[in-house]
Amino acid sequence: MIPAELLRKKRDGAELTKEEIQWFVRGITIGDITAPQAAAFLMAACIRGLSSKETAALTLAMRDSGTCYRFSTAPKPKVDKHSTGGVGDKISLLLLPLAASCGIAVPMISGRGLGHTGGTVDKLESVHVCMDINNERGAELLARYGGFFAKQTQNIAPADRILYHLRDVTGTVESKELITASILSKKFAEDLDALVIDLKVGQGAFMDTLDQAQALAETMLGVAQQVGLRMRIVFSSMEQPLGMTVGNWLEFEEALEALEHPSSTPPDIAELTGRLAASMLIAGGIAEDTATAMNIVHTAWASRKPLEIFHALIREQGGDIESSRAQYAHLPKKAICAPHDGVITGIHARMVGVAGIMIGAGRQTSEDTLDFGAGIVFHKKCGAEVRQGEEIGYVQSTRTKTLDSAVHHITRAISIEHRAYNPPPLILDEWDSTG
Amino acid sequence: MIPAELLRKKRDGAELTKEEIQWFVRGITIGDITAPQAAAFLMAACIRGLSSKETAALTLAMRDSGTCYRFSTAPKPKVDKHSTGGVGDKISLLLLPLAASCGIAVPMISGRGLGHTGGTVDKLESVHVCMDINNERGAELLARYGGFFAKQTQNIAPADRILYHLRDVTGTVESKELITASILSKKFAEDLDALVIDLKVGQGAFMDTLDQAQALAETMLGVAQQVGLRMRIVFSSMEQPLGMTVGNWLEFEEALEALEHPSSTPPDIAELTGRLAASMLIAGGIAEDTATAMNIVHTAWASRKPLEIFHALIREQGGDIESSRAQYAHLPKKAICAPHDGVITGIHARMVGVAGIMIGAGRQTSEDTLDFGAGIVFHKKCGAEVRQGEEIGYVQSTRTKTLDSAVHHITRAISIEHRAYNPPPLILDEWDSTG
Repeated sequence: MIPAELLRKKRDGAELTKEEIQWFVRGITIGDITAPQAAAFLMAACIRGLSSKETAALTLAMRDSGTCYRFSTAPKPKVDKHSTGGVGDKISLLLLPLAASCGIAVPMISGRGLGHTGGTVDKLESVHVCMDINNERGAELLARYGGFFAKQTQNIAPADRILYHLRDVTGTVESKELITASILSKKFAEDLDALVIDLKVGQGAFMDTLDQAQALAETMLGVAQQVGLRMRIVFSSMEQPLGMTVGNWLEFEEALEALEHPSSTPPDIAELTGRLAASMLIAGGIAEDTATAMNIVHTAWASRKPLEIFHALIREQGGDIESSRAQYAHLPKKAICAPHDGVITGIHARMVGVAGIMIGAGRQTSEDTLDFGAGIVFHKKCGAEVRQGEEIGYVQSTRTKTLDSAVHHITRAISIEHRAYNPPPLILDEWDSTG
Repeated sequence: MIPAELLRKKRDGAELTKEEIQWFVRGITIGDITAPQAAAFLMAACIRGLSSKETAALTLAMRDSGTCYRFSTAPKPKVDKHSTGGVGDKISLLLLPLAASCGIAVPMISGRGLGHTGGTVDKLESVHVCMDINNERGAELLARYGGFFAKQTQNIAPADRILYHLRDVTGTVESKELITASILSKKFAEDLDALVIDLKVGQGAFMDTLDQAQALAETMLGVAQQVGLRMRIVFSSMEQPLGMTVGNWLEFEEALEALEHPSSTPPDIAELTGRLAASMLIAGGIAEDTATAMNIVHTAWASRKPLEIFHALIREQGGDIESSRAQYAHLPKKAICAPHDGVITGIHARMVGVAGIMIGAGRQTSEDTLDFGAGIVFHKKCGAEVRQGEEIGYVQSTRTKTLDSAVHHITRAISIEHRAYNPPPLILDEWDSTG
């Protein structure tokens, strides 16, 4: 095969074969295919589109460019959840112990945060959890705790890393097929039986509108069907931040509290966690429908078993919650106050995420270092009445010089109006690859 | 401006502004825009196409990436001819002195041969002509001889060199807009008043069919109109090699003989040279129509003035015809014989060009070294009757091991049939940017 011939074929809108795509991705991985050739492919794929077969072949070829977990002895259904990224999204921390307590094995490999959205790895590193989990260790943790927290290593889907960087600089990020292949190539390395996608929709998400999100979901389900993996996609709203906190340690703490005190969990966290856990049970074949699954999930959550699993696993993976709690207890703070009376009708998630970057809770570029304790705490969210001057929340960071501009930014992100607030649904839709 | 944003714009089919294209090409030239970004642009341009305005902006930006000649004092119209590449095409060598003798100034910058087609630079280097001509020297030669032979230096349109290489490896060679920008960016660096294109059509040419050639011609004329330069395009057939020789020294010698003995010039060389010279006179405003221009050209050709200009210019530029003649006089030769009786109905130009590469008359890659004396001489061409075993021509090269396979290849390139040969027209059409 000749790279230019293959590029010419895609350029002219023809469908590439599985073998051609495998050969091309292998070439990218070992360096036989140059970066300009890979970039030309990305642009052609972006404009011409990729079929389900092509996208599935690309996904598997990218997965196979690196190492994959193998959990052949695990008796339980292996199901993970992937979120397309939100603000204040600490759901993964809750889901692993909750699903594990219901009989699911959760080999959870997560990424770091970038831009206005956070990452599970950073939240766990705020309590020093070690996420370098090899296959043997992963199998052991799966068997003992029903899950593990791992981070993407250099060895997982290296072709994705090369292509991800190229997409960023060549204006080819938005292709739903390339997004699908990037996400699923890493998830498919987890040796899953099923996968639940939390597809965020709204200004705080990668996908602004439900239409866009559904188009991406169709592409993802197409690949799931091609490779024979059960996939469920939950469409959830990402307009205001999830829960009451944004920031790595703060979100870890909020997740922990949700496990400790299920009944006082912020309603959006409770609803989305419950629905995603139920979806994992259905995808894993443990429940038939959402009502049944929800019952199992709520019973488990109330039983404190997820909390025990969580503590045991965090300890096993080297985490030390108490020392982090002490470390971040007295950070410099600055209040966010209501500029006038009214009802909170919006908290612009993306602007809050950007404020998080300012104070070191998030990264602008992958080289940025974090302040794990930095973050934003909301006392009130959409629907709450406030009075002028009342503290709605606060910002904290060791980077004290950034607090004022972050508070200013967040204040502008909060809409306070004199009207009734009609809460939009948090869960917008749910799709299943088998239905 | 951000490269990825500009790429996204072209990806989605929008028209880039002149300023965006200038900025992008400048970035490519100085290295701010990376090779993957340039490659992504080429693919997007290939699939989405470029408007006349975009193509003109790209052409001028590529021209302006390097140095340009300035001949502000030249009183004569400055006209050059560019050929899209053929086999046995030595017309440039004749055209410069012929057009110069008719009052045209010809600042001729040529390239080397690559693949099955030859290059004027190689033909002139076979007699040691020095083609490093700076602006001052060029102006002097233009004033004294009415022309000069120069080669493309590193300084002329460096952006084209970068993009040309990338097109080759990314399957984006075939875009008519990118071809146009590549050709014209270098020609526009010659400070021309007008340009004549010899657009070759046929299996021996870059463009197989007249349809393809006309599409390219339309793109070229669109750019000429955008930049306000008069352009004429002569469509000529490239099915059998032009003239009786293929190879650098052999073609130089054939051109010289055509100037020395106009009446015994092979008819295809005479016809195409006359027509292209006439086109240059019309484009330069020296003649109004082809009949008038042809008269001027034929009178000039018969006057021996072109021969004098040619000899004087070759000498002035350091060429030494007699030493080359002596050097290449006794090369190892091998006859090409007719396998059976009949009429020659075809000599496959591309196959002959490939045979030329075998013996060192042409290059497979730009790193290949040439044997300037190597080449093919035909005694007979299409339409001639031959008898079995008769020598139709011969191959010569110092690389004696290659002679047999070249002869074999050329023998297969020659069709000999028992039927009357109906010669197709050599000149297929002629277009003018003002008409």
